[in-house]
Amino acid sequence: MKATVLAHPNIALVKYWGKRDDALILPHQSSLSLTLAPLSVTTTVEFGAASDQVEINGHTAKGSERDRVLRVLEAVRGEAGGKLGPAKMVSRGDFPASAGLASSAAGFAALAVAAREAAGLKADPKVASMLARLGSGSACRSVQGGFCEWRRGERADGTDSYAVQRFDAKHWPELRMVVAILNRDEKEVKSRDGMKHTVDTSPYYAAWVKDAEAEVPRAVEILQRKDLQALGELAERNAWRMHSTAFAADPPLCYMNPATLGLIQHLREQRKKGMPVWFTLDAGPNPVLLTDAAHEVAAEALARACGAVDVIRCVPGGDAELKGEHLF
Amino acid sequence: MKATVLAHPNIALVKYWGKRDDALILPHQSSLSLTLAPLSVTTTVEFGAASDQVEINGHTAKGSERDRVLRVLEAVRGEAGGKLGPAKMVSRGDFPASAGLASSAAGFAALAVAAREAAGLKADPKVASMLARLGSGSACRSVQGGFCEWRRGERADGTDSYAVQRFDAKHWPELRMVVAILNRDEKEVKSRDGMKHTVDTSPYYAAWVKDAEAEVPRAVEILQRKDLQALGELAERNAWRMHSTAFAADPPLCYMNPATLGLIQHLREQRKKGMPVWFTLDAGPNPVLLTDAAHEVAAEALARACGAVDVIRCVPGGDAELKGEHLF
Repeated sequence: MKATVLAHPNIALVKYWGKRDDALILPHQSSLSLTLAPLSVTTTVEFGAASDQVEINGHTAKGSERDRVLRVLEAVRGEAGGKLGPAKMVSRGDFPASAGLASSAAGFAALAVAAREAAGLKADPKVASMLARLGSGSACRSVQGGFCEWRRGERADGTDSYAVQRFDAKHWPELRMVVAILNRDEKEVKSRDGMKHTVDTSPYYAAWVKDAEAEVPRAVEILQRKDLQALGELAERNAWRMHSTAFAADPPLCYMNPATLGLIQHLREQRKKGMPVWFTLDAGPNPVLLTDAAHEVAAEALARACGAVDVIRCVPGGDAELKGEHLF
Repeated sequence: MKATVLAHPNIALVKYWGKRDDALILPHQSSLSLTLAPLSVTTTVEFGAASDQVEINGHTAKGSERDRVLRVLEAVRGEAGGKLGPAKMVSRGDFPASAGLASSAAGFAALAVAAREAAGLKADPKVASMLARLGSGSACRSVQGGFCEWRRGERADGTDSYAVQRFDAKHWPELRMVVAILNRDEKEVKSRDGMKHTVDTSPYYAAWVKDAEAEVPRAVEILQRKDLQALGELAERNAWRMHSTAFAADPPLCYMNPATLGLIQHLREQRKKGMPVWFTLDAGPNPVLLTDAAHEVAAEALARACGAVDVIRCVPGGDAELKGEHLF
């Protein structure tokens, strides 16, 4: 059986930063994100190949990238009763390189949903979310669209650590995320290494965990009433705190560059003049601006004026979805 | 009686950030600084005037600036038995405006020592340090030269919160501090307001206090063996943590500007190439580079290449000292 699925990346408004279990990718705290269209990754999976084959963006995957895919496929084989053979997987993203958005989130979400479908298993967003998490933590938040909360869970086996959709993409269609690509260079410290370094050496890490956990229900309440200013302030606060706990690591870990800070300061000036625009920032130098449909053109102009070499305007994205056309 | 004293500013290697008592200026944690020459403030005090007169840099002081000076003078009158009348005080600094170094630290240290001398009191660095603290917290670290530790103290009346000299200026004469003035604008949020905002709203503040307190004895041990690299790493770590606890405030408080971050990142590159240079940063955008005599010219060049509009090269400064020439 063959199945093809398209999934979107997501950007966290309350960030995930730090694992309590490296193998199962279990986080120390809950997080909350918005799924982003039109960016997407499409993945086709077919069981019954001669051997496992993993092709991503035209290249045969190797090393840890291949290992993470096989971990997800193996879990699906287990769920299906162990009767499925090796699989062929082909994946293609429409992501610009180093956009500052994790293509792995969309990729593993698409893989998890496609592999379960190809295995003949009944669709189950909760199970697919846990599978996606085994490939890349934040991928668990891309199985469903709109606003998804990744509940940290308590169990050691990870069976209560998955994302649930709090509001679908239609809840707040006017919301916009504008990705400002200031720098395409690959970041020096990968997120997973940066997280580990922060957990191990930042004296602020315990306070980060407690604070982020408390921000999730506040964010849900703000989303319920669609209060852009409150959401923007919460997103900025949380982004600063995620970065601050990394700045406080030993040695300090800084993902911002001068242009990032310049854009952040310019945003604040623009808000004083009445423009509703805030930022969030993942573990890289490229901010994502949060605004509404009426201001997305102005937000793009602002990003370009601050040195963005490229800008991607995003709207709330939908669930990972089955496609009729396969990649092989 | 008339007395004139010259005192130097200081730069903290373990920062002071946050008061446990606003009126007595008592800190939450201990701190440790280096006194800096040749920058200085000279102050003349004479008791027996018709009314209190306070002149700073050619202007009659008003408002809180005047109030802080009178608080110190009043404490000296109390120490002297209450028999001294109003005082005339004239103070002049050789500080460039907004160097990012607190001229108030040198000013209040000079005032405290000069006022006690003018009152006929026996010189006592501990008492002078406590008096200077009443004007500006970090001033307590400028009464003596070299490396001074401000012990936070425990008492509510502040009588155990003062600076002690751990090493004099001759202990490590090759040490250099190079002030890189990137921006002369007055900062938007004054230190005392920024501290209060951080204490009140940063979830990282408690961890800052605990961490900074633990860094002081480590810094003393490093100073003992004159290990520039270890001192540089400690200073950078502490500066990032001070700023991080402010970044994590609500709303976030950022004293860096893009040029600050650019210089910090450039420093790291230069270190990889073998140049022994680190930074510290007070509550403003202008970094102070930490290096040795053999590299101070290169450090100045580096600062200018990163956009410094002015650079001040400093050496370890001495104690606040009596001068024979008076300002009036």
